Amino acid sequence: MTELLSNFWASQWQGGKGAGTALFDPVLGDELVRVDASGLDLASGFDFARQQGGAALRTLTYRERGAMLGAIVKALQANRDAYYDIATANSGTVKNDSAVDIDGGIFTLGLYAKMGEGLGDRRYLLDGEAARLGKDPLFQSQHVLVPTRGVALFINAFNFPSWGLWEKAGPALLSGVPVIVKPATATAWLTQRMVKDVVDAGIVPPGALSVICGSSAGLMDQLQPFDVVSFTGSADTAAVIRSHRAVTHGSVRVNIEADSINSALLLPDEADEAGLDLLAKEVAREMTVKSGQKCTAIRRVFVPQAMYEKAAQAIGARLAKTTLGNPRNEAVRMGSLVSRVQFNAVQEGLALLKTQARVLHDGSTMPLIDADPALACCVGPTLLGVDNGDTASIIHEVEVFGPVSTLVPYRDIAHALHLIRRGQGSLVASVYGSDPAALAHASAELADSHGRVHVISPDVAALQTGHGNVMPQSLHGGPGRAGGGEELGGVRALNFYHRRAAIQASTAVLGLL
Amino acid sequence: MTELLSNFWASQWQGGKGAGTALFDPVLGDELVRVDASGLDLASGFDFARQQGGAALRTLTYRERGAMLGAIVKALQANRDAYYDIATANSGTVKNDSAVDIDGGIFTLGLYAKMGEGLGDRRYLLDGEAARLGKDPLFQSQHVLVPTRGVALFINAFNFPSWGLWEKAGPALLSGVPVIVKPATATAWLTQRMVKDVVDAGIVPPGALSVICGSSAGLMDQLQPFDVVSFTGSADTAAVIRSHRAVTHGSVRVNIEADSINSALLLPDEADEAGLDLLAKEVAREMTVKSGQKCTAIRRVFVPQAMYEKAAQAIGARLAKTTLGNPRNEAVRMGSLVSRVQFNAVQEGLALLKTQARVLHDGSTMPLIDADPALACCVGPTLLGVDNGDTASIIHEVEVFGPVSTLVPYRDIAHALHLIRRGQGSLVASVYGSDPAALAHASAELADSHGRVHVISPDVAALQTGHGNVMPQSLHGGPGRAGGGEELGGVRALNFYHRRAAIQASTAVLGLL
Repeated sequence: MTELLSNFWASQWQGGKGAGTALFDPVLGDELVRVDASGLDLASGFDFARQQGGAALRTLTYRERGAMLGAIVKALQANRDAYYDIATANSGTVKNDSAVDIDGGIFTLGLYAKMGEGLGDRRYLLDGEAARLGKDPLFQSQHVLVPTRGVALFINAFNFPSWGLWEKAGPALLSGVPVIVKPATATAWLTQRMVKDVVDAGIVPPGALSVICGSSAGLMDQLQPFDVVSFTGSADTAAVIRSHRAVTHGSVRVNIEADSINSALLLPDEADEAGLDLLAKEVAREMTVKSGQKCTAIRRVFVPQAMYEKAAQAIGARLAKTTLGNPRNEAVRMGSLVSRVQFNAVQEGLALLKTQARVLHDGSTMPLIDADPALACCVGPTLLGVDNGDTASIIHEVEVFGPVSTLVPYRDIAHALHLIRRGQGSLVASVYGSDPAALAHASAELADSHGRVHVISPDVAALQTGHGNVMPQSLHGGPGRAGGGEELGGVRALNFYHRRAAIQASTAVLGLL
Repeated sequence: MTELLSNFWASQWQGGKGAGTALFDPVLGDELVRVDASGLDLASGFDFARQQGGAALRTLTYRERGAMLGAIVKALQANRDAYYDIATANSGTVKNDSAVDIDGGIFTLGLYAKMGEGLGDRRYLLDGEAARLGKDPLFQSQHVLVPTRGVALFINAFNFPSWGLWEKAGPALLSGVPVIVKPATATAWLTQRMVKDVVDAGIVPPGALSVICGSSAGLMDQLQPFDVVSFTGSADTAAVIRSHRAVTHGSVRVNIEADSINSALLLPDEADEAGLDLLAKEVAREMTVKSGQKCTAIRRVFVPQAMYEKAAQAIGARLAKTTLGNPRNEAVRMGSLVSRVQFNAVQEGLALLKTQARVLHDGSTMPLIDADPALACCVGPTLLGVDNGDTASIIHEVEVFGPVSTLVPYRDIAHALHLIRRGQGSLVASVYGSDPAALAHASAELADSHGRVHVISPDVAALQTGHGNVMPQSLHGGPGRAGGGEELGGVRALNFYHRRAAIQASTAVLGLL
């Protein structure tokens, strides 16, 4: 039997009492490790984190908490090779794709480490300036942001076992709020190993960081009014979380990042090839990085009617250069999906899209390098297309979580914006063009239905950070179908872990806050 | 039969198709008017507001929307006498108490009218400064706040038919978001009349402001992902709203203000009488204003053990001066509860509290002035007390929405803060004392479990704005049991009606936002 990974729970390494669930290599099919959380005393773990972890973190200043994050960064960097090995084995990703998760997570954590320095020797934050409450300036209102005195429970997704932990834990720990992470089972190994390295390095106080691997059953039942829960995953599970009594009756604060049918938009009047080239390059990259298993990946590509054929050719030509197979082989540019379950889900989703779309570039016949097609969960990139984006409703509703995008022609900018809105709220849209005024207008029009608008013009072609890359300086989240959450966005990320209060008092009192 | 009030729906005055529900005078028992919304085409009203109202508001700048709010203020001021008449008849309040609702609403609206001027000739807001996304300063991230392209549905409470509308509608309309208000049936008349006056004055564009009186059945079913809903009322109804599919699956943004068991805290070491006097005055005022029917009213009063008897006497002496009865009689200082339903609920709640508390000042035997005890829903102020706040669990859990408070002794400041936290999140706590350091410490300790901390020290005794008065400059809302919402707080109120997005682009593009 393979190793049963321990949970770090109530500051102790504890194995589950059951046989566990196996994690597999999605390329070779081997069983790697097992996870299990059955039999753990959930209440005592939550209580330990809430009481011990919370109290210890709150005695630290932001500067001290930032230094703690900086120490975590160092501990993780010291173990990078092991993380790449785990990612290759458990996520089936090539090195560049593993980096998005591993180094992306460490980079994001580093930003919050630095932020602690800037926030200084305080234990809570002032929010804006004091405001007079009457003509006499002696009595005023000062808003403050204080750490919530509960735990932050993270129920995370399989596609980012590293980044998904640290992009949430960075802001939480910097805020003074203890973290309990429940990674997705399929790829829980990397999360568990990272927590283990941080714990072994003795960096965080007892109770500040816990990991529980396996089923999420019972976790929501533990939440109390001052706790918060941040979920990344499917819309159905999101609805279960939102409907839980802890949320409906206890007002537990929830952050959701769910399905998102992101768009790329080539502006009209981009008659030259420059805009098209930028678009084709970005679409092909987004389809293939991590085999399209990013919530931010481009799912719909909108181009002027007249550019439709050219766009199909340009994107197809780039996809044709992709090499698919075993990520251990250096000739391979794209590895596998994370699991057989995901492989099947992508095939089903693709079949569904094909009921209303046709194939412009077919990835299904792509040969695998150094991998057995019967075992490896590899899927070639497939570009679909529709003639009529108004009637092809399914492309605005079904997210296929793999290397699949659909090309959609539009008549004019109003038509394009209307079609994009049919996604009912997304994480990100990218816009391609060279006229700053047209780009600014489209960005402002897209802003209410997207958490991020990424604008690629020729002047920033070499500088732009990528449609799908989540930069910690920018908001991550989107309204409606995307879950309505807000993560990152620089210091804005701290809001979720703080409670805002207005303190109305004499300036003699306010001056001491 | 009394008049059936019309609904303003899809920019037309429309009566319900049913017989309607009667509204009563809670002092005299007379039927006043009827309300009904049955048979209205809900979908078309929401769609009209969303499409026509939203588009019209978004063409205006913040300055223009602020001017629109200023015109509403004038229209309301021109009809103040009618509002006071309606409040006396329908809410049973004396003039000073009607003012809290009527003039409080107009004052709050006025603040948002002025804010429009400050926000200027823009149609959306920049959120913070642009941030670099790399070493080269050409590619940056600029956050924006843009009006959500949906409706704001307000499901409001019976105790503030004016203020409850305008404290929400001010920020919503200033943000460019159309409003649909569903007032609580018992006191819907004043809300309906105010909307009528604004509509008659031709101030707002068609679809920007709608009122629907009667049942709330079916309203939530109309909500779409970019809509928002703001609810003030019971925790049970709040849970129904939070569990609705529009929220759980559509990520409709929700703001809840529910039950709250607010506290007043006399600090230790206030051996002189000054702090006690300030506390007694404020507690007696909060118990009697609007007969204690304010979500912000003081429900629990914490004093050092040694001050318990003195506090009981000081509060009781003030309550004894109250005069109760028909609000039309000038000798009366305190009118009635809003309805027979509320009268019964307060009697039941009082009986429940008495299972663990004793009566320190009994209001039940108070004579009524100019009112028939068999008809009038008048309740005299009652101060309860407990010996042991640790074991008397019910006082931390049951909110009696009337002129009832409970006095609780404590041992030391840690004990007091512990007992206050047993309220599981409240709208407001007030703190009384003269040592700025002790007041600042207590405020910071209370901030995570309260939306507002109100500090009364001798230097601001004549300036302080009142424990229960919601100043628009300060946050209104509280975590946990209080619903987890955030309203007002100056410009912060606009956040709920805007969507935040990060625009990542060349500075040539960002400069045009």
